[in-house]
Amino acid sequence: MKTKKINIKQKFSKLSEYWSPKVLAEMNDYQFKIAKIKGDFIWHKHKDTDEVFIIIEGNMKIEFRDRVLKLSEGDLYVVPKGEEHRPYSEKECKIMLVEPKGTQNTGDKRGTLTAENDIWV
Amino acid sequence: MKTKKINIKQKFSKLSEYWSPKVLAEMNDYQFKIAKIKGDFIWHKHKDTDEVFIIIEGNMKIEFRDRVLKLSEGDLYVVPKGEEHRPYSEKECKIMLVEPKGTQNTGDKRGTLTAENDIWV
Repeated sequence: MKTKKINIKQKFSKLSEYWSPKVLAEMNDYQFKIAKIKGDFIWHKHKDTDEVFIIIEGNMKIEFRDRVLKLSEGDLYVVPKGEEHRPYSEKECKIMLVEPKGTQNTGDKRGTLTAENDIWV
Repeated sequence: MKTKKINIKQKFSKLSEYWSPKVLAEMNDYQFKIAKIKGDFIWHKHKDTDEVFIIIEGNMKIEFRDRVLKLSEGDLYVVPKGEEHRPYSEKECKIMLVEPKGTQNTGDKRGTLTAENDIWV
């Protein structure tokens, strides 16, 4: 169990690739992950879990089948379990995700954007 | 299921009392709560769960039986399941907590600081 104090913003300096969430902390069987994102992600859903987005720096959008959501620094959004979504961002955006350990970034899809899971930052 | 976009900092204007966490969002059976804190809290532990503190604004400390931890804006800390702790803050501090729904703020203790649970902000 890692229980060191973590400065969220500082940890982003350790990330290199976009769209590749890294684990920051674990709480019970949940993980806090950070990611830098830029450009387009793919449509996907997480059939077994909600997924929380917290915007640490910058702006991003999440497209749903019926709407587009704009998120800015300091916003929190819960993507409901099973709802198809597509995150994207014109400029670099820094986000924190909260979800059960083992949640795959591309959900029900596999592809070039599928990141290795459970890698700590 | 409430899935509106939430600006975390803005929600603090709706809090009145100190040490009384209010629910901001729900993810599966977990809740994101915000609280304003100032002064001393009581020693307690959560025997069944870890508890995440994220500092939104200000500074606070958490006393453990063997150490004192200083937390500042942007820090995240996971208080391990079962570990006795006592949060306190000289000046007002704004925090976000993440923990399972139903987690009581005073853990295994009951007293004047025990807040009503599951009240949304």
